[in-house]
Amino acid sequence: MTEWTKLNEAITEWFTVVQQKLRTSDQKPLEIKQKSDRTDLVTNVDQEIEAYFVKQIKTTFPDSKILGEEGDKDNGLTTYPGLVWVIDPVDGTMNYVKQRDHFASMLAVYENGHEKLGYILDVTANKLYWGGPECGVYCNDEKLAPPKDLPLSEGLLDISGRMLVEDYCHVKKAVKASLGIRVYGSAGLGFIHVLTGKTLGYLSHLHPWDYAAGKILAHVQGLVVETIDGRPFDMLSSNDVLVATKNAEKDILKQLDRPNV
Amino acid sequence: MTEWTKLNEAITEWFTVVQQKLRTSDQKPLEIKQKSDRTDLVTNVDQEIEAYFVKQIKTTFPDSKILGEEGDKDNGLTTYPGLVWVIDPVDGTMNYVKQRDHFASMLAVYENGHEKLGYILDVTANKLYWGGPECGVYCNDEKLAPPKDLPLSEGLLDISGRMLVEDYCHVKKAVKASLGIRVYGSAGLGFIHVLTGKTLGYLSHLHPWDYAAGKILAHVQGLVVETIDGRPFDMLSSNDVLVATKNAEKDILKQLDRPNV
Repeated sequence: MTEWTKLNEAITEWFTVVQQKLRTSDQKPLEIKQKSDRTDLVTNVDQEIEAYFVKQIKTTFPDSKILGEEGDKDNGLTTYPGLVWVIDPVDGTMNYVKQRDHFASMLAVYENGHEKLGYILDVTANKLYWGGPECGVYCNDEKLAPPKDLPLSEGLLDISGRMLVEDYCHVKKAVKASLGIRVYGSAGLGFIHVLTGKTLGYLSHLHPWDYAAGKILAHVQGLVVETIDGRPFDMLSSNDVLVATKNAEKDILKQLDRPNV
Repeated sequence: MTEWTKLNEAITEWFTVVQQKLRTSDQKPLEIKQKSDRTDLVTNVDQEIEAYFVKQIKTTFPDSKILGEEGDKDNGLTTYPGLVWVIDPVDGTMNYVKQRDHFASMLAVYENGHEKLGYILDVTANKLYWGGPECGVYCNDEKLAPPKDLPLSEGLLDISGRMLVEDYCHVKKAVKASLGIRVYGSAGLGFIHVLTGKTLGYLSHLHPWDYAAGKILAHVQGLVVETIDGRPFDMLSSNDVLVATKNAEKDILKQLDRPNV
């Protein structure tokens, strides 16, 4: 097993560089391209940050496999007996493009199929949420206490705008049982808000790079992370993912009309 | 007419104190009470901040009338031939209670029925958005350029969670014509995001203290602020308020099924 401290030392240094790159990118015009549709964007900055991470990983930990949002994908990812890295260079690209705010940069490390370390950088706040089962969860240098295990009736719920508008699985029923909804448009911020108790749950259709880091941190903090159709996570495709406090999770699932359950 | 500089000098000093009060309140437990329902809250901090503003106003500008969210209300507000102040001590109280984040403090000054000065303090960011027709709009010391007049198809829309869940006036049609929705749960932040071009529009059911400051700033920046039923603003009751770029406003109204229009 790789020492987590050795990994963390390198990764923390990369995130210092990434924070700097993403803040100074404010001043430059972006090259923006559409991916699957007009709301699914990629910019030159997404690609540059991913290339930076890939280069650092391949240099520092050459026996690694990589899955990146912007196209880096090794074979044999799910069966690889070593380090597997999942990169989301800019999470919440629409917010990044339209707001230069409310976005994140994320990295997750798995070893021999197990959760090792997760990193979510809130760029505007310059706060790096990071940790793993061997070390606990931190915001920058400060250890985070696990959030209170509150029921849905005592807090806010973060749901993807698309699920809300389509009333996917009758999510509105869960919303009505909560104190209200928030929609921030970034999976990284969605996970951060549940980790810090600002919301009790976050529900969205996510790709592996959207949830890989958050899942590790959430597990360490005693939160539930699951697909709402009850299937195992598939690291090679997208899933309807719920992260929530244990009590809120029970309440939310009671309200949802879930597929195949 | 009162010199805007004289008003601004005093108000800016009050907001320095309010920023400090709201940040240090993080460490104290809150006394929370329900107002109209379980999602409509007031805390001892809301009341303390309002009392602070009222005291400063009455001391510095004794010939003033005041309308405050937490109960301060003079008679003859709409007809008063002098300074009228509208106070929202903590805007986004649910966020303040549950997140200690994503909330604002707001103050508006009208003179002889005319818009004079508006102030929105984003406490987490420690940014005061302020200005009026005589001086322009600033974020702290930096003058803000007006946001680009983009159409709805080129940006994000902020809608109150309740309107979205109820599909009020078919707001979903407007959402689908945009690049997506965001729900932040604070009118102050809602106005700030449109003022800074982070969203193209904000739509919510608002009380006068929720929109009084934002309306002044939005008008200076060339944005449209209106009730969606087309009636004049009623400073003594609540309204369905839309603030948007001119182009987005046209696009949004085309999609909405508005009452009495």
